[in-house]
Amino acid sequence: MTTFSVAEIAARCGGRVSGDGELRVAGVRALDRAGLSDLSFAADAKSERKAVASRAGALLVRSAAAFPGRTVIEVADPQGALAAVLLLFHPRRVPCGGVHPTAVVGPGASIDPSAEIGPYAVIGQGTRVGAGAIVEAHAAVGRDCELGEGAWLHPHVVLYDRTAVGARAEIHSGSVLGADGFGYAPSPGGIVKVPQVGRVVIEDDVEIGANTCVDRATLEETRVSAGTKIDDLVMIGHNCSIGRHSILCGQVGLAGSTTVGDGVILGGQVGVAGHLRIGNGVKAGAQSGIDGDVPDGEAIWGSPHMHHRLALRVAAELRRLPDTARAVRELIARGKKVEDGENR
Amino acid sequence: MTTFSVAEIAARCGGRVSGDGELRVAGVRALDRAGLSDLSFAADAKSERKAVASRAGALLVRSAAAFPGRTVIEVADPQGALAAVLLLFHPRRVPCGGVHPTAVVGPGASIDPSAEIGPYAVIGQGTRVGAGAIVEAHAAVGRDCELGEGAWLHPHVVLYDRTAVGARAEIHSGSVLGADGFGYAPSPGGIVKVPQVGRVVIEDDVEIGANTCVDRATLEETRVSAGTKIDDLVMIGHNCSIGRHSILCGQVGLAGSTTVGDGVILGGQVGVAGHLRIGNGVKAGAQSGIDGDVPDGEAIWGSPHMHHRLALRVAAELRRLPDTARAVRELIARGKKVEDGENR
Amino acid sequence: MTTFSVAEIAARCGGRVSGDGELRVAGVRALDRAGLSDLSFAADAKSERKAVASRAGALLVRSAAAFPGRTVIEVADPQGALAAVLLLFHPRRVPCGGVHPTAVVGPGASIDPSAEIGPYAVIGQGTRVGAGAIVEAHAAVGRDCELGEGAWLHPHVVLYDRTAVGARAEIHSGSVLGADGFGYAPSPGGIVKVPQVGRVVIEDDVEIGANTCVDRATLEETRVSAGTKIDDLVMIGHNCSIGRHSILCGQVGLAGSTTVGDGVILGGQVGVAGHLRIGNGVKAGAQSGIDGDVPDGEAIWGSPHMHHRLALRVAAELRRLPDTARAVRELIARGKKVEDGENR
Repeated sequence: MTTFSVAEIAARCGGRVSGDGELRVAGVRALDRAGLSDLSFAADAKSERKAVASRAGALLVRSAAAFPGRTVIEVADPQGALAAVLLLFHPRRVPCGGVHPTAVVGPGASIDPSAEIGPYAVIGQGTRVGAGAIVEAHAAVGRDCELGEGAWLHPHVVLYDRTAVGARAEIHSGSVLGADGFGYAPSPGGIVKVPQVGRVVIEDDVEIGANTCVDRATLEETRVSAGTKIDDLVMIGHNCSIGRHSILCGQVGLAGSTTVGDGVILGGQVGVAGHLRIGNGVKAGAQSGIDGDVPDGEAIWGSPHMHHRLALRVAAELRRLPDTARAVRELIARGKKVEDGENR
Repeated sequence: MTTFSVAEIAARCGGRVSGDGELRVAGVRALDRAGLSDLSFAADAKSERKAVASRAGALLVRSAAAFPGRTVIEVADPQGALAAVLLLFHPRRVPCGGVHPTAVVGPGASIDPSAEIGPYAVIGQGTRVGAGAIVEAHAAVGRDCELGEGAWLHPHVVLYDRTAVGARAEIHSGSVLGADGFGYAPSPGGIVKVPQVGRVVIEDDVEIGANTCVDRATLEETRVSAGTKIDDLVMIGHNCSIGRHSILCGQVGLAGSTTVGDGVILGGQVGVAGHLRIGNGVKAGAQSGIDGDVPDGEAIWGSPHMHHRLALRVAAELRRLPDTARAVRELIARGKKVEDGENR
Repeated sequence: MTTFSVAEIAARCGGRVSGDGELRVAGVRALDRAGLSDLSFAADAKSERKAVASRAGALLVRSAAAFPGRTVIEVADPQGALAAVLLLFHPRRVPCGGVHPTAVVGPGASIDPSAEIGPYAVIGQGTRVGAGAIVEAHAAVGRDCELGEGAWLHPHVVLYDRTAVGARAEIHSGSVLGADGFGYAPSPGGIVKVPQVGRVVIEDDVEIGANTCVDRATLEETRVSAGTKIDDLVMIGHNCSIGRHSILCGQVGLAGSTTVGDGVILGGQVGVAGHLRIGNGVKAGAQSGIDGDVPDGEAIWGSPHMHHRLALRVAAELRRLPDTARAVRELIARGKKVEDGENR
């Protein structure tokens, strides 16, 4: 098992050691599970209280002051430092260059020798796989697709024809990129399918969770821009464009032709109607139902959505609505009594 | 690259040419991407304004009047015409008859010679695959299944035993048809599974998106009737019956034993409780929560659902609820003051 | 075709025969489909009325009194008895011990001889597969995983490295266990991934539906405890812990680090925020949005959630909200008129 000294770990995450820098650390564990050879971490006041009681040999914390006599690494941002430290212990999987003998590679496909193609993967004709890319077991890559340098398809990912996945993008199992968008035209004989002949483009450093669907455009592109992170079971309709460094939580659904800006955060199960423009930096609370354009920087919540602050007040009043309604009925009854008295 | 003349395209979609019928068109593009050798289209007033500025060599529009000097194809329904024109440029994939050498076909399975079975597909024993059907890579078809003429399973589709898929039905990647319904009985020792021994029937011309689940019935059938279109990540519980030419948008969920009529439209993320009857022609807005039967032809919205018109008024009043509640408190306070005055 | 006598069936489910115990039954059918050689069942008053009209040769009912002259099996709990009877006709699939020649088994993996590994399954190095386990076609099992006795992975299940699946647990097609949790840290250069180095543990007798995702923990474990049943398209975020004998219906979503107790029922499409504690025996209605801890035994509904009884009253008042708000405006107007009169 590889171990690192506290000093090495501090160097990796830009932290300051207080205590025994020579202490060997074997791994990173949760506060309540860590032992003497483990590092743990506390990013907020609540965790810091738990950290005091933790048996962790070393701690990644905001300040050493609360931990007299303990070996700690001080960092401004323990959460960010944790990412760096975990990467030290668990580096990203290195591709074993080569094509598994059971993989089926179509004619004219070009696979960089440093890329790894796993068992039973299928690579369509004309597809290009970049240096250091990983295509795991059973991934099905269509024709004329493009995988950038270091792109990583987990087992059972499906790419329909002409899908592009950028450098270092990571797509988790079961996700389907490029299936037909949901486009139909009514006709006297029933519903007629509008062929979906565009494609899907996933830019660099995007991560997509498991069993998520990004549908191909009707004519042009459905695009997820660089650095954006998408969780499990999300659906992105055809012709959508998602900006850079945005976060789409689990089970979010976007109908077609909607544009989402940069730095947007959509909470879990948020639904967004079609043909909308969600501005840069928008934050939408979980289960919001967005049925209109949202200006840059707005915080929203509710279904249908409203300003987040208003939504909080509405939610509070909703619980009182039966009381409020009863009060109204009493006011009406009293008013009637007064009027009856006057009219008598 | 195959090109078509404007006259040929007009003939295909039943349109009238105004301008240069001999112009060769290389493809169909969006208004803002189309060039001189492309056709684009405008189906509403907003698109027509954009179409005037488009560099498209030819346009599919409702009327030539707004486009003097341009080459246009006039049609009553540009959206429907677009479907026909796209099919001209991008015809449905033709099966390359034959079974890939890596496919595993069970004993007693019968596969029409014109059907295409892709790499690593698995076809269970006793299954029949009709003429011109396509089973793509890694599709797993159970025992005693039936695929109609021209049925199309995209990569990674799973059919549990005894599932039937009708003629020309198209199932997108990752969808699972026939997994066990969610049926349990409470017991002193915990929850006991009720074996789910029915099956799933998908009728002709149905399209099902990616990663959708249709669960097998407890005893009889879960059925999706002819011409119905289902989007990605939809869940159809056991024993449900969906009518003809209905549309279920992304992430819709139906609990068990619910009947949905013909020509129904369920918006994105709609949830429907179990054992209900949703009538013909019902339209439910996105995120509706349907917890009771809905009569034929009704438009509904909201969670729990109500008439669409009422739901719109409720949504509008909801935003004003904090103000309304404050007004009620003021009225009460004023009433109290008046009473106090009278009693003094 | 195997048949059983009514007496044999009654013995299996602990019922009492009234009528012809020697009658041979060929199968179990729905009331409206059953014929003379079929058994059907009625678990409530509504079904009992239908049962009278049914042509079923035998009936599983609460009391023979309503069925004079018919052959019935009386049981206290027809739903539970149905589970036992269906298992008689459709016993759980017995594994055909052995590894399909197309399966890829990594070095150091240990597979019990009685386990069945299907075509194109991939078993990672160091993984242990217990006695009588079934791994169906295309299942992709990572390294150092563990499958308990009689565990059953349906086609296309994916297990990431180090996932444990307990005895008799059944995982339906397309489900992904152990994909990376959704953990990121903001940084000046964009969003930085926090490596997810924990794992997923599924305990004994758990059933998981199709296309469901359970994400691996950041450091320790995401756990689903014994006997819990999870439906299709559910998402369990990283670090969650689900108790014993709980029921999570279709499309439920749990954000990270939430603890769900024993015997909990979450209705369809329920969303639960992160870092919460949902107590034992909690029942949440469909589409609830749970944004705070819930004490043991509570029944809740709504988004955001409230007590179920309050939620019912709120839902009823919501439909009247436009009328209530109009009444408030009239009261204000009348009050103003009165004041104006007094001031004149």
